Amino acid sequence: MKVAKFGGSSVASSEQIKKAGSIVAEDTERKFVVVSAPGKQFDTDTKITDRLIELSYVEFNTKEYKSISDKIIERFAKIVHELDISNEILTEISEAIDTAASVETADQQRKTDILKSIGEDSCAKIVSRYLNTIGLNAQYVNPEEAGIIVSNEPGNAQILPDSYKTLYEMREQKGIMVIPGFFGFTTDGKLMTFSRGGSDITGSIVAAGVQADLYENFTDVDSVYVVDPRIIPNPEKVTTLTYKEMRELSYSGFGVFHDEALMPAFQAEIPVCIKNTNNPESAGTMIVSNKNEESRGVVGIASDTGFSNLYVSKYLMNRELGFGRRLLQILEDEGISFEHAPSGIDNMSVIIRDDELTAEKELSVINRIHEELNPDTISIDYGFAMVMVVGEGMMSAVGIAEKSTAAFADANISIEMINQGSSEVSVMFGIRKDKLHKAIKALYNKFFN
Amino acid sequence: MKVAKFGGSSVASSEQIKKAGSIVAEDTERKFVVVSAPGKQFDTDTKITDRLIELSYVEFNTKEYKSISDKIIERFAKIVHELDISNEILTEISEAIDTAASVETADQQRKTDILKSIGEDSCAKIVSRYLNTIGLNAQYVNPEEAGIIVSNEPGNAQILPDSYKTLYEMREQKGIMVIPGFFGFTTDGKLMTFSRGGSDITGSIVAAGVQADLYENFTDVDSVYVVDPRIIPNPEKVTTLTYKEMRELSYSGFGVFHDEALMPAFQAEIPVCIKNTNNPESAGTMIVSNKNEESRGVVGIASDTGFSNLYVSKYLMNRELGFGRRLLQILEDEGISFEHAPSGIDNMSVIIRDDELTAEKELSVINRIHEELNPDTISIDYGFAMVMVVGEGMMSAVGIAEKSTAAFADANISIEMINQGSSEVSVMFGIRKDKLHKAIKALYNKFFN
Repeated sequence: MKVAKFGGSSVASSEQIKKAGSIVAEDTERKFVVVSAPGKQFDTDTKITDRLIELSYVEFNTKEYKSISDKIIERFAKIVHELDISNEILTEISEAIDTAASVETADQQRKTDILKSIGEDSCAKIVSRYLNTIGLNAQYVNPEEAGIIVSNEPGNAQILPDSYKTLYEMREQKGIMVIPGFFGFTTDGKLMTFSRGGSDITGSIVAAGVQADLYENFTDVDSVYVVDPRIIPNPEKVTTLTYKEMRELSYSGFGVFHDEALMPAFQAEIPVCIKNTNNPESAGTMIVSNKNEESRGVVGIASDTGFSNLYVSKYLMNRELGFGRRLLQILEDEGISFEHAPSGIDNMSVIIRDDELTAEKELSVINRIHEELNPDTISIDYGFAMVMVVGEGMMSAVGIAEKSTAAFADANISIEMINQGSSEVSVMFGIRKDKLHKAIKALYNKFFN
Repeated sequence: MKVAKFGGSSVASSEQIKKAGSIVAEDTERKFVVVSAPGKQFDTDTKITDRLIELSYVEFNTKEYKSISDKIIERFAKIVHELDISNEILTEISEAIDTAASVETADQQRKTDILKSIGEDSCAKIVSRYLNTIGLNAQYVNPEEAGIIVSNEPGNAQILPDSYKTLYEMREQKGIMVIPGFFGFTTDGKLMTFSRGGSDITGSIVAAGVQADLYENFTDVDSVYVVDPRIIPNPEKVTTLTYKEMRELSYSGFGVFHDEALMPAFQAEIPVCIKNTNNPESAGTMIVSNKNEESRGVVGIASDTGFSNLYVSKYLMNRELGFGRRLLQILEDEGISFEHAPSGIDNMSVIIRDDELTAEKELSVINRIHEELNPDTISIDYGFAMVMVVGEGMMSAVGIAEKSTAAFADANISIEMINQGSSEVSVMFGIRKDKLHKAIKALYNKFFN
C-alpha cells in the first residue's frame, strides 16, 4: 500500500494531472493520493494558493474581488475543460470561495485559512473525478472524514495523535482515496491549515496513519542531488538517504522539500521516495531510516548563506562559571536563536542567522554584553556562509575531515570555522560568503567527481 | 632594568643559589630578584613549602612539631653553612616559625598562609645576604615595603591596583632588591599568599610595577618546547611566543608555568623570558605581545586528557529557543564548568573536564536534563583527550586545518571533535585518550620535523 503525494507543479495543468493520473493507474498499490493546489505552470505564473490568499484580504464582491476570483475560476475551468470532466465542479468551487469570502469576521487568519484551503480541496475533487474518467474507482475524501484532526492554530496546525487511528481504518475502504493536502480540522470542526510545506505534511501524516509501505512524493525533479544544481550543473543523484541525512541537508537550503513535513513518516519509519511526475521511470531518491554499512560515506554537500558571527573575548573567560550561559541568556531574552557557539579559552563565538538580528536587537545585545559580562572585546562579523558535508556514520571515519579541508586548501579558501563533534552526520565549515560557490565546487570534485 | 625570578629548583641548594648569584652578578640590569622557597633537590626530596604546610596542621611544641621544624631548619642550615653566611638567620627563621605556629587561632587558613610564606621569606633573606658576600649591593625587601598590597583572600590573594604605584617608586632605590615571592599584605597588614604559581605571580607583578624592560623567569629547562618532551624526546625549542599563544599552550597541560601568573606582566606588555638557571647561556624562550608576520605559523602542540562528552539530542532542537542555554544552566546550577559546546542541528555536546564531575553531580544533571529538556537521547562518554594546534594568526591561513587533519588521517586516528572558529590562535581536536601519543607524534612530524 502506497501513499502518492503530488505537489503543485504535478497538478499545475490538465497535462500534469494526466501524468499524475497515469502514475496512479499503473500501480494498484497507490491507494491514497494527496494533492497540492495547482502551482505555477511557468515562471511568471501565479499559484492558486497565492491568489486565494490575496482574495482573503480584499472586500467581498468588489471589482477587485471579482477580478481575482475570476482568475481563480478561469484557471480551474481550463483544467476541468481540458480534462473533459463535468462543469459542475466549477460552480462548487465558486460557491465555496464566495461563502468563505463573504463571512464577516474579525479573525482574518481564520478567513485566510479557509480561503487558501480551497486550492487543495478543489484540486482533490478534480483529480478524483478525472481518475474516474480513466476508469479508476477513486473518491474525494475530505480531511475531516479522513480523520485529520489538528490543534487550533490557524496557519500552523499540529496533528493530534488520535488522527492516526481514524486514518488506519481507511485502509479497509475500497478504491482510491484522493485527499486534499494542507489542512485538517479541529475536534470542534474548525478548518486549520498547516505551516509551509503543508501538503507534504498531509501526505506524510496519511502515510504514517495508514502504515503505508511507501510514501511517494512526486515533484518536478528526478531525485535529490548531492549538491545544489544551481551551483554544479547536472550533479550526481542521491539514490538513498537516511532520515537524519535528509534532515541535515534540508537545514542548509537543500531545496526539494521542508524536512519537518516528513516527520510523521520518519517517526512511523515509512520509507519515502522522491520521484518526478514528468519522468516517473527515474528511480528517484529513497529516504529510509537505516542504510547498509557499505553505502556509508558523504551523501551530500549542503550550504546556506546569511550568517553572522558574534564574537566576545575576555581574559580568563574559562574560569568564569556561567559566562557562556549568560551570553546565550542575553540572546534568548532578545528572542534571538543561535546556530552554533564554538568557544576558545578566552573567547566565544555565536553564529546567528542574519534574519534573527535587527539593528535594534543588535544594539541591545551589545549593550547588555558590555554591561553584564564586561568583555575585553566584542564584535559582530557579517557575511558568513555555512557548508555542511553530510553522511551518516562518516564522522568518526578517518580521512573525511582531511579530504574536506584539503578541498578548501586546494581552492585557496580560508576556513573561518569548523564545527564537528556533536552531530554524527555532518561536519560544518564556516567560510566567507563570497567563497561559497568555489568551496562547493572544490568539495564536489573531491567527494564525487 | 630587569626582574629576575628564580623558581624552587633554582634555589633548592647552596649550589643552585650560587648559580643564581652569578646570573644576577653578570648583568647590572638585574635590579629586582624574586625568589621561591627551596624546592626539591632530587625526585624524592620534599619542598620546604610542603613541610611548612604540614607544620601548620600539627600541635605546637609536640614531638611531631619538633621533628618537622627541625627538618626545615636543617635544610636551611645546610644552605647557610655552604654559602658561608652568618648563622643569625637560622635563629630568625626558627623564631618566625615558632611565632607563627604558636598562635592559637580558629582560622587555620590564615595560620597556614603565614607559615608557608616563611619558605620564600627566608630564602629571600639568605639570597640577599649571599649576594652581599659576593660583593653585590643587595637588600632583602619585604613584600609590604615593596607595596605588594592584596585582597583579603588567604591562599588566593589578588593584587590591588595601588600596589603598582609603590612598586614603581622602588626603581629609584640603589642596589639590588631581593623580594620573596608568593605573598603580599592586605591594607590592614594581614599576610596573604597567592594561589598556585605564587612566586611567578610576584615576579610578574614586580616586573609590571617597576616597568621592567624584561621579566626573566629562571627555571630548570632551557626553553619552552613545541611539544611535551615526555611524548617527543628532544623536541624543537620555541624561540618566541606571543602572550596569547602561551595562554593557549598553558591551558592544555603545557607545563613550565601557570599562565595566569604572567597576567600582570602581559597586561603591562613586559616581555618575558624563560631561562635555565643551570644553562644561562641558552637563549631561552621569549614571550612577547606581538611578533612579526614572517614568524607566524604553528608554534606548538599542546594536549590534555581527562575530558568527557555530555551528548544530548532532540528532534527539532534548533527550533527550541533557549535549549542550549537551559542545558548550560543545569550544569551551572551544579557548579560544573564546561570547556566547549559544539552543536549540530538536533544535538549538542558539552565537553567537560572529568574533575568537574562526580557520580552524584552526573546523576543530578542527567535527571534534570531528562525532566526539563525532554531529550530523545542523552549520554556521557568518557576518555577524551584534547589536542591543540597553536599559533597566532595561523587560523585563517589556508592549509593549517588540512595539514592537521592529514596528520590524523596518516596516523589512522579518528577525529571525534574539531573546534575552530572562535580563537584566532588555536584549533582544537578531540580524540580518544588512548590515541593521544600517536596523534602528538603525527602532528609533530607534520609541522616540525
